[in-house]
Formats: sequence, structure tokens, C-alpha cells
Amino acid sequence: MKDYNLIVIGGDGAGMGAASQARRVLSDISIAVFERGNHISYAGCGIPYFLGGMVENSSSLQAIDREKFSEKKNIQIHIKTEVTEVDFKEKVVTFNSRGNIDTVKYDKLIIATGASPIIPPIGGMDNENVFLLRNLQHGLDIHGKLKSGAKSVILVGGGFINLELAEAFRAQGLEVTLIERLDSVAPQSSPEIQEKIQEVLRSNGVNLLQGTTISNFTGSGKSITAHTDNGDFTADFAVVSTGVSPATDFLKDSGLPMMPNGAIIIDEKSQTAMKDVFAAGDCATVKNLLTGKDDYMPIATTANKQGRVAGLQAAGVTTEYFPGAIGSQMFKVFNLEVAKTGFNLRDSEKHGFDAEEKSIVWHSRAGYYEKSAKVVVNLTVLKKDGTVIGGEICGEDYAGLRIHTIAAAVSSGMKVEDLAYLDLAYAPPFSPVWDPVIAAAQTFLVRESSGFGY
Amino acid sequence: MKDYNLIVIGGDGAGMGAASQARRVLSDISIAVFERGNHISYAGCGIPYFLGGMVENSSSLQAIDREKFSEKKNIQIHIKTEVTEVDFKEKVVTFNSRGNIDTVKYDKLIIATGASPIIPPIGGMDNENVFLLRNLQHGLDIHGKLKSGAKSVILVGGGFINLELAEAFRAQGLEVTLIERLDSVAPQSSPEIQEKIQEVLRSNGVNLLQGTTISNFTGSGKSITAHTDNGDFTADFAVVSTGVSPATDFLKDSGLPMMPNGAIIIDEKSQTAMKDVFAAGDCATVKNLLTGKDDYMPIATTANKQGRVAGLQAAGVTTEYFPGAIGSQMFKVFNLEVAKTGFNLRDSEKHGFDAEEKSIVWHSRAGYYEKSAKVVVNLTVLKKDGTVIGGEICGEDYAGLRIHTIAAAVSSGMKVEDLAYLDLAYAPPFSPVWDPVIAAAQTFLVRESSGFGY
Repeated sequence: MKDYNLIVIGGDGAGMGAASQARRVLSDISIAVFERGNHISYAGCGIPYFLGGMVENSSSLQAIDREKFSEKKNIQIHIKTEVTEVDFKEKVVTFNSRGNIDTVKYDKLIIATGASPIIPPIGGMDNENVFLLRNLQHGLDIHGKLKSGAKSVILVGGGFINLELAEAFRAQGLEVTLIERLDSVAPQSSPEIQEKIQEVLRSNGVNLLQGTTISNFTGSGKSITAHTDNGDFTADFAVVSTGVSPATDFLKDSGLPMMPNGAIIIDEKSQTAMKDVFAAGDCATVKNLLTGKDDYMPIATTANKQGRVAGLQAAGVTTEYFPGAIGSQMFKVFNLEVAKTGFNLRDSEKHGFDAEEKSIVWHSRAGYYEKSAKVVVNLTVLKKDGTVIGGEICGEDYAGLRIHTIAAAVSSGMKVEDLAYLDLAYAPPFSPVWDPVIAAAQTFLVRESSGFGY
Repeated sequence: MKDYNLIVIGGDGAGMGAASQARRVLSDISIAVFERGNHISYAGCGIPYFLGGMVENSSSLQAIDREKFSEKKNIQIHIKTEVTEVDFKEKVVTFNSRGNIDTVKYDKLIIATGASPIIPPIGGMDNENVFLLRNLQHGLDIHGKLKSGAKSVILVGGGFINLELAEAFRAQGLEVTLIERLDSVAPQSSPEIQEKIQEVLRSNGVNLLQGTTISNFTGSGKSITAHTDNGDFTADFAVVSTGVSPATDFLKDSGLPMMPNGAIIIDEKSQTAMKDVFAAGDCATVKNLLTGKDDYMPIATTANKQGRVAGLQAAGVTTEYFPGAIGSQMFKVFNLEVAKTGFNLRDSEKHGFDAEEKSIVWHSRAGYYEKSAKVVVNLTVLKKDGTVIGGEICGEDYAGLRIHTIAAAVSSGMKVEDLAYLDLAYAPPFSPVWDPVIAAAQTFLVRESSGFGY
């Protein structure tokens, strides 16, 4: 194999975005992408909707036709090609392509290998009816299981992927048992929002077991049994989603500075500590704008942003940077939308912020307008000066989109008294006169009369 | 009539909010509201939806039961009581209550008389089949006309109230002719958004006449004819909505400082230039946060905020203030949502800002997800430093709510390069990975390679 000016390791969102952006800026460099799996640039976040039948064809989850893209952009794409070692000093990448080991040199390198599922300490994880869900191949495997007539599933882990899967599998008519080791699903959420999620799961027929630890799986061929401290549960198959860790094992001894969990430490220009080496996405850190520290917050939006920055920076666009993230996220579980940005009270305590949290229940539209829905808004502000540091929203009727207001407020260091009087747009079909976020901010205002003064 | 500690003139949103807030803080002052009309605290913005049949009963537009409210809050409410004069020096209000002229003294006064429809220079405006739409009584009058079997209407003026009415009357099966004097409806919008609005009006069967001036109305009893420079148009009735002006005629010679249009000049504490006199809502100015100057932007959200501040300040809560507005607004016309905040390019030119505007067409959800809709985002930034000063959004699928992100960015003085990498939440049912607003901001980034550097 010939050498390349730019090598990108990893062909999902961050990596393909990086390669595209570099090409957009420089037409005359040689670029190659090495992807260990079968697919590039697939919409991982769309897999639950494919499994739920809302997205008909798995091909629509693939944003890019590999061969057309490769030809049009003049980017070499090597699938089923796993990078096993990088020599940063000699700028040499060693890879295994379908059994053949070889090396290639780079001028600049972008590492975008993403994350791997954490395999929990449960016996029998290698059972053929235990599935992981991280990449498109996993999704296709589970889809095959559904097509073969599966009627029941055990979901292990209560993070948002499994919550989305609970909805998807119920939509397909499956019996769904969800087992979470901690006291509640959605561990990142505040207790009152966790309760709403639990309610919607139960009211949609999900058998929900929290505070329940699985010791091991048993089963042969036709079913799987999870043995727990709350009894045994049997289903046709199980999906285990208990978090992810950076897919950087191959760099363990490379000298590249990483966080203890293996996340490659990068700056706002996606640069690692090694010259000419960038990283992006779920294999890398991101600066937490609230703490100012490196953090690990694997999420598609950040991955895409870091990938874009990495590609541009590698191609000499030194003005492009991604300042950092505040943990904005949202998901839908049945009709409930759950969104979060920044820190809630629990996060604040964990990070040593002296903060106050208030919660209101508001409505999504003018009270008289049809289909107005309830919206819960939690807001967290610093006690010392009222700086808004986070919020959570939960409800129906596009409640989730309202988190953007809080995300912008947190990012810009807005004070709660300014959020309380922010000039947001209003129309009866979309909002009450007092917007839910503004109404939440209003609850922080202290109103004591200094006297009527007449 | 006995004297009062606090008199509020005007019983709609701003006035009733002011009275309520004052009472909330001080239980022992005497408070009276003087309202010249029949109704208090009605949802004016809901009238088009009442006329369109989406809100069944006009009573649900009335947020407050007057008698219960009056008793519970211990606030005297005098309807059909018009204030005709204020002597700020002697603190005396003269009023006409159903023909009886009387005076009363106040310690503190809040003026919240709202705005009156501008009567355009069209002959025959006094025809019984020509209606205005500003207050609930107007709405009830038009409703009566519909109930009497009207089958066609001429809407005069292309502002958002008449656009909402066009939808409402089409929903009721009426033939609708909309006549606008200027070249386009929605004069505050950018040309490309005006085109979308024109399209949706026409495709929903509205007979749209722009650049058309009405000289006079004629008709007797059963129909009305608008004589224009584009021909004559006849319908069962007409609704004229050609803007509003502050309802402050009664203060003309009072010495109270006002803008040339009659808007009472107030500060961020809703205080007028007169001691112990406050004003709020559509009869008052608001500080334009972009220009730093007094402006007239009559809109319900600002009115409610100013009313709350006026009531609290009058009651001695000196910490409460409303910094100002940036002209955030939104409306729905058929399936199209139209939202705006801050300045577009035309506004920028008008106010002497050297700005640049860019526009993109994006999508509302992940591309593979069902029901993704097109979203147009316009963004305006200062050329000198990239400060975001405004945006417009137009589309379906809750596109309008996305204006909040831009409103927060404008309010906080965010730079476009930060908006381009803002950490917003994402989930396939609600957003693409690159949010439409972020995607619009990205178009401003300059990407020139300073060299690959190897």
C-alpha cells in the first residue's frame, strides 16, 4: 500500500466528516480511511428506529454510498481493515486487512475509532442470544432475530439507547423486560424526571426492574434466561447496553496521552499531544465548558463537530475550533421527550458547584389551544451569582426542543434574572405567553418589597 | 369613589398582571383597575383560533373570572370605565363610568391601556360590514357575523393577525381575499420568507392581492365592496388590521413624555418620567436591546413582562426589571411556521448596522426519520466581529420553536463562530445531528487552508 498525506482511522461520522472536510479544503492531498467494520458513516442513532419499524430500510441509515463517495471525493476507503498499532515517531500505521498485516506512512493522522460497548461482569455474555448494540452490524443482527420471529426481549441497562429500544420493541409487539442495576433508569436525570420515565415505561407495558443485578445468563439456542437477585427472567433474546468506553486499546502502549478510561486527550482544535495527530468523537475527550476540564461525553453531535474540526485543522484551516460541550442530550421514550443540558443538582454536587435547583410543571401551548401538554422544567443555577448552569425538560409536544434555550443560556453564561425576562417568540399554537423555560427562571427571582413608599 | 393606593388603567394582560403582582407582594394596599371595555384579561392572541373553530368557547379566552378574581385578590375592577384625564401633579384620575364623570386619587399609578387599531385612510370605514380586530368584543362581533352565515371575507392588511385570520376563515369554509397595500404580506420578513408565506396562502385558496390600495368601501347591509386600484372586490364582510398605535390619546396634553406615536416612554423598571407613575404593554415603549434605544414593539410577551415589572416595582420590589426586547415573534399560517428575532438585513440597513445575512434550507429531523420537514433559517451577523444580531426561521414541524436558540444567542451577544459549534441536544425524532440553526451559523465560517504543512 502506498503512503498517504492524511490517514483517518475509523469510518463513522467523525472520521468520514474529517476526511470530507479535509478534501473540501485541499484537493491535492492523498487521503485514506481505515475502517475495521463493514460499514461507513451509518446513523447509529437511527438503529432503534430501524428496529422499531419507523425506518424501513437499513440502507437509509447509511448516509453515504461508499463507492460513489470514494470516487467523487478521491478518498481511499478500506473497510474490514483494523489498525493494530501506530508509531507516532516514525508516523507509521500497522493494520490488519482481512488477515494481511501491513504498514503505511502518514503525514497527518486522525483517530476516530469511536467507542466499544462495555461488557458488564455477567456470566454467559457470549451466549448467542445476547446482543450488543453499538454499530450497524449489531443492528442488523438484532433485526435478523426479530425477523426470525422473536416475541420477547430482555434489555439490560437503563440508558437512553435501551429506553429507545424499549419503545421500538413494544412497537413490534414484543414483551419487553428492562433490567437496570441502579435504583433508576436514566441515571443522568433528576429523580422527578426518572419517575416520569418509569411511569411511561410501565404504562406502555414494559416490565421494569430497577435495583436488580444480573449474575449470569443461561440458555441454549431458543431462549435466554437472566438470573438476577430478583428472580429469573426468560426471553427470546437479550440486548445489553451498559455504557461505552473509547475504542483505543490498540494505542495503550503508544505513549499517546489519554484519560484513565482510554479517551484520547485533545484540545479545542482536535489536536492530541502528538504532532500531526488529531482525534475526534467517542474515542476522544471533550472540554467540559462548565468545569473547564477534559471530560468524556460520547455523543453524536460532539463527534461530528470534532470530526469536522479535525479534518479542517489537519488540512491547515487553523481558525476552526470547537470550544467544548455541556452535555446536551435528548431522547424520546414512547410519547415522553427527555432533554438535558449542563448540570443538574446531582452533577453540581459531584463537581463541587454550590447550586440550587428548582422545578416547575408548565404547559406547552396557550391554555385554551387544543393539544396543550404538560412540560416539566428543572433549572439549576449557581447560588453565588445566579449563573444558569443546567436544565432538564421532560414532557410531550416538542418539549425537548425547548432545552436549546437553556443550552444557549448555559453556554453564554447567562444569569437567571436575564433568562427570566428573555425575549422569546410566542404564538398560541407553540407556546404560552410565559414560555416554560422563562417560567422556570422566574421562580428564582426574589420578590421582597422594600416598602410601598407613600 | 374612595381613593386608592394603586390604580391600574387598563384590564388586559399587562394591567391585570400588574395588579396581581402588586397584591402578591403587599396584602394591605388598596388596588383598583379601570377598564373602558367589557372584558378583562382576555387572550387577544387566541381570537383567530376562536374564529377558526379551534377554540370552542370564547369564555376559554378569558383567563380570569372577574368577580372571583376581584374577591379573591381584593382588587376593585371597574369595567366600562374610561379614564379621560390624569393630573400627575395632584395625582388625580378623571374617569367616565357609564356616563358618570368622577375623579379619584392614587398614590401610585400604572398605565396599561394597550393599543388601538390604526384606522387607514379608506372611505367607508364606518360601514357596518367593516370590522376591526383588536379586542374580545371585536372578536365576538366577527363571530356573530360568521354565525349569521357569512361565506366570504375581505382581509385588509397582511400582518400576522390577518394571516392567522386567513387560515381561520378558510378553516370555516369562507372565500378569503387578502389585500395588502405594500408589495408583500408580512412586511417584517425577508423576501424569501415572504415568498413562502405567499405560496402557502395561495395553495390554501386565499385570493392574494399585494401592492393593492383600497380607495373606499361601499355596500349596504348584505355585502361590502372594496374599490381598489386593481379592481373591485365584494364579500359578505371585511376585517381591517393595518397596525396599531398606543391608546394614549387621553394623555396628549398631560405632559407625560411619549414617543411621536404616543407610546409612553418607560425604563426597564416600567417607570415613566413622572414620579409614582408606571406604564406597561402596548401603550408603552420598550428598550430595543440591539440599538439601546426606546422602541415601539407591541407584543403580548413584552406586555406581560412589563406589566409584571410595573406591578412589582409599584409595590416596592425595586429589584425587578425587564432589560428589553429584540423583536422576537412567531406565527402560524396554515402549516407554515414563521419566526423572527432581532434584525434581518433590511432592519440592519435601516438602523445603520453593517451586517451580513445568509440563508439555508435544512431539515427538521434526521433524514431517515419519518416526517422530516424543510426548515429555512436566515441568520444575520455583524460584519465587524460576527456578533449574531438576528434570525428568521420558516418551515413546518415546530420549526418556529428553534428561533429561541437564536433569540438567546442575540440576547447574550454570541458570536456566530460560537453559535456554529453550540452544544445543542439531538435525537433523530426532533433534530438532525447538525441542528438547523447551527448549520446556518456554519455557513459564515471562513475556511482557508494556511497550507498542509508537511
